[in-house]
Amino acid sequence: MSNIGKVITCKAAITYGPGEPLVIEEIQVEPPQAFEIRVKITHTSLCHTDIHYWDSKDAGPILFPCIFGHEAAGIVESIGELIIDFQVGDHVLPLLVRECMECENCKSRKTNICQNFSTNICLGVMSCDQRTRFSKDGKPIFHFFGTSTFSEYTIIEHGRLVKVDPLAPLDKICLLSCGVSTGLGAAWNTAKVEAGSTVAIFGLGTVGLAVAEGARVAGASKIIGVDLNNEKSGKAKTFGITDFLNPSEYDKPISQVIMEMTGGGVDYSFECVGNTNLMHTAFDSCHKGYGVCVLCGLVTDPAKVFSTHPLSFLGGRSLTGTLFGHFKGVTEIPSLVEKYMHKGFQLDEFVTHELPFSKINEAFHLMLDGKSLRCVLHVGNT
Amino acid sequence: MSNIGKVITCKAAITYGPGEPLVIEEIQVEPPQAFEIRVKITHTSLCHTDIHYWDSKDAGPILFPCIFGHEAAGIVESIGELIIDFQVGDHVLPLLVRECMECENCKSRKTNICQNFSTNICLGVMSCDQRTRFSKDGKPIFHFFGTSTFSEYTIIEHGRLVKVDPLAPLDKICLLSCGVSTGLGAAWNTAKVEAGSTVAIFGLGTVGLAVAEGARVAGASKIIGVDLNNEKSGKAKTFGITDFLNPSEYDKPISQVIMEMTGGGVDYSFECVGNTNLMHTAFDSCHKGYGVCVLCGLVTDPAKVFSTHPLSFLGGRSLTGTLFGHFKGVTEIPSLVEKYMHKGFQLDEFVTHELPFSKINEAFHLMLDGKSLRCVLHVGNT
Ligand SMILES: NC(=O)c1ccc[n+]([C@@H]2O[C@H](COP(=O)([O-])OP(=O)(O)OC[C@H]3O[C@@H](n4cnc5c(N)ncnc54)[C@H](O)[C@@H]3O)[C@@H](O)[C@H]2O)c1
Ligand SMILES: NC(=O)c1ccc[n+]([C@@H]2O[C@H](COP(=O)([O-])OP(=O)(O)OC[C@H]3O[C@@H](n4cnc5c(N)ncnc54)[C@H](O)[C@@H]3O)[C@@H](O)[C@H]2O)c1
Ligand SMILES: [Zn+2]
Ligand SMILES: [Zn+2]
Ligand SMILES: [Zn+2]
Ligand SMILES: [Zn+2]
Repeated sequence: MSNIGKVITCKAAITYGPGEPLVIEEIQVEPPQAFEIRVKITHTSLCHTDIHYWDSKDAGPILFPCIFGHEAAGIVESIGELIIDFQVGDHVLPLLVRECMECENCKSRKTNICQNFSTNICLGVMSCDQRTRFSKDGKPIFHFFGTSTFSEYTIIEHGRLVKVDPLAPLDKICLLSCGVSTGLGAAWNTAKVEAGSTVAIFGLGTVGLAVAEGARVAGASKIIGVDLNNEKSGKAKTFGITDFLNPSEYDKPISQVIMEMTGGGVDYSFECVGNTNLMHTAFDSCHKGYGVCVLCGLVTDPAKVFSTHPLSFLGGRSLTGTLFGHFKGVTEIPSLVEKYMHKGFQLDEFVTHELPFSKINEAFHLMLDGKSLRCVLHVGNT
Repeated sequence: MSNIGKVITCKAAITYGPGEPLVIEEIQVEPPQAFEIRVKITHTSLCHTDIHYWDSKDAGPILFPCIFGHEAAGIVESIGELIIDFQVGDHVLPLLVRECMECENCKSRKTNICQNFSTNICLGVMSCDQRTRFSKDGKPIFHFFGTSTFSEYTIIEHGRLVKVDPLAPLDKICLLSCGVSTGLGAAWNTAKVEAGSTVAIFGLGTVGLAVAEGARVAGASKIIGVDLNNEKSGKAKTFGITDFLNPSEYDKPISQVIMEMTGGGVDYSFECVGNTNLMHTAFDSCHKGYGVCVLCGLVTDPAKVFSTHPLSFLGGRSLTGTLFGHFKGVTEIPSLVEKYMHKGFQLDEFVTHELPFSKINEAFHLMLDGKSLRCVLHVGNT
């Protein structure tokens, strides 16, 4: 029995306030507007960005109650009347980086930051009419990042959804919807790690280890991984980490240890935590003359800063950042999925846990306790 | 009558304390040690870096009395006993960036920062024996940057001097010894400005206008020049500036003006003053998704910082810096001189004033008052 054109009642994990446990409840999901797509989420994983916004009182304009979640996979349930490039049944990934295809940035090969992106991301409403499509007992429930994948059904605007190979396993490629693509792209697109180069990665969660995987595939000769949690050293080798360092086991700054190990600093360093102190350490660990430090971690507190004496750049060191690994979601993720299907990189190994959707709070705890890389929640099975 | 092997008595401009007028006095210059070269300076210009160190009480380990000056040209007077690649009479330029040819950095194509560089630059003594070669009435006079070109004769260690085409006019190519090379190289080597790209330059002194000249030669389509001094707009056009902006004539931030002029920011911005506020402006003026901001200006006050929220890098914007435009002095400046001889870029136009060496304080005032680009001092003619 089709729900096309009708309101769907389904389960979603609602957050009523910052840091509060998620509550699985029945909600109503409106049909998609003209340029929107209603997606049945089959799998969603949890990315630390969800936690940053869920956890933080400073995370800016998050409206509660809301439905978090942005790393997921699903199947098109119905399409808005002006949608011509998606059909019911298409396998899709939601994207946190929108691609409108029409603005100057989308037309430029140099950036994946759609000009319409920044104004939309945290509003909690759909951009065409500034309204939410979710409600419960007639009261609005807000969106998050335009994705809200912690729900059996969600509404996604055109440009924030990519169609992928239906043969690709949704329970794995959901990770390409954010964390793994970000890390791979940070290595391949942002830093452009080349064969023989040296790399240091700070924070060995999924983003950090996907940077390692990207550097490994690119042929880096040394990939130093830094984490405070020794349990991360196990999986680290799988993804090419050649040297694991726990800063708490050294009585000198870890940047100095890295300087000494590499005779002057690495070619590329990556901060994959979202900690400004660690960003300074990552910057200090790269070569003074040509090191490139890539900031991947998200800092949501507006009071935090990266600050350094301008002379620290004079030798030629660079500082830069990446959003979604510089991938253009709609145009480039399909070929990343194909690359995975042809074993061009390791993906399955990032899935350390799988749980039914109903246990979503357990997934939060696994990440907060440093036990998981990615916990994939099976949403269809609720 | 040759002085080879003997102490030379000659004139030099001595600075006895920070910010004090220079005094032309007779000094004694020892013969060169084994790996040193004694150079008769024919022309020296004044670069703002001299002023930074001369002016500032925070400039670090400058030892007084000292002889400033690092942008110059001259002729080899005598060589140390182990020198095999220079001869008496060679035309030479002193270099503030050393090239030892042996360290990892000198062997790498990616940097011009010799590993022996940073420890030597401000010591005020020669590196082989930690002594000075200058004295007056038996009391030591200290070196500056290993060059000290405000003297009729100076001692320069091997690796900090480059031999150039004897047909090249010394009164012009002295500018390639620092400022003009820095600006050209910032555009060509550091930013790698390409045809059609957009550029904004903050500070239209010699370094800034040499960036413009580099961008012009590279085919940039728009070169925005920013200076508080309207007199700089005249020469600016010569070097390819397409739009001159004086921030004091706008009632909104100049970065916003540039954002609007370019539809989202320039591809490359360059700070060529050494002012941390202006560095922030330069960073804010470049495109959020792919802008590269190059810091050329020198900040000598150790208390100053560049600070920004890490999110400002997330879109892919980069911050970097340059020393001597990423040129390797000994190996790359000879071909830059040849490029000048073949009219590959404009150089003569940077010389706005010429004075006898005895009027060196006037050269300081011309720069401090914003009247000159480069004032070339004729040292031989004292
Ligand atoms: N730039 C982007 O487009 C993008 C995309 C996805 C995620 N992110 C951000 O990347 C970061 C990492 O995300 P994730 O999902 O991999 O998180 P995660 O929780 O899986 O991993 C974080 C890792 O950092 C380690 N860590 C924490 N503090 C540390 C410290 N001080 N020193 C060393 N290691 C430390 C933890 O032990 C953990 O292994 C987050 O800030 C997230 O918001 C950014
Ligand atoms: N990185 C290097 O290798 C290198 C080499 C040479 C010089 N430098 C540095 O480059 C800088 C410029 O040197 P220069 O010799 O061209 O100096 P300069 O004095 O000739 O030029 C500086 C220009 O900046 C302008 N200016 C000053 N404050 C300004 C402001 N707030 N906004 C806009 N414009 C402003 C002045 O009007 C002047 O035109 C100095 O800091 C110098 O130390 C660096
Ligand atoms: Zn767009
Ligand atoms: Zn994410
Ligand atoms: Zn060297
Ligand atoms: Zn200089």
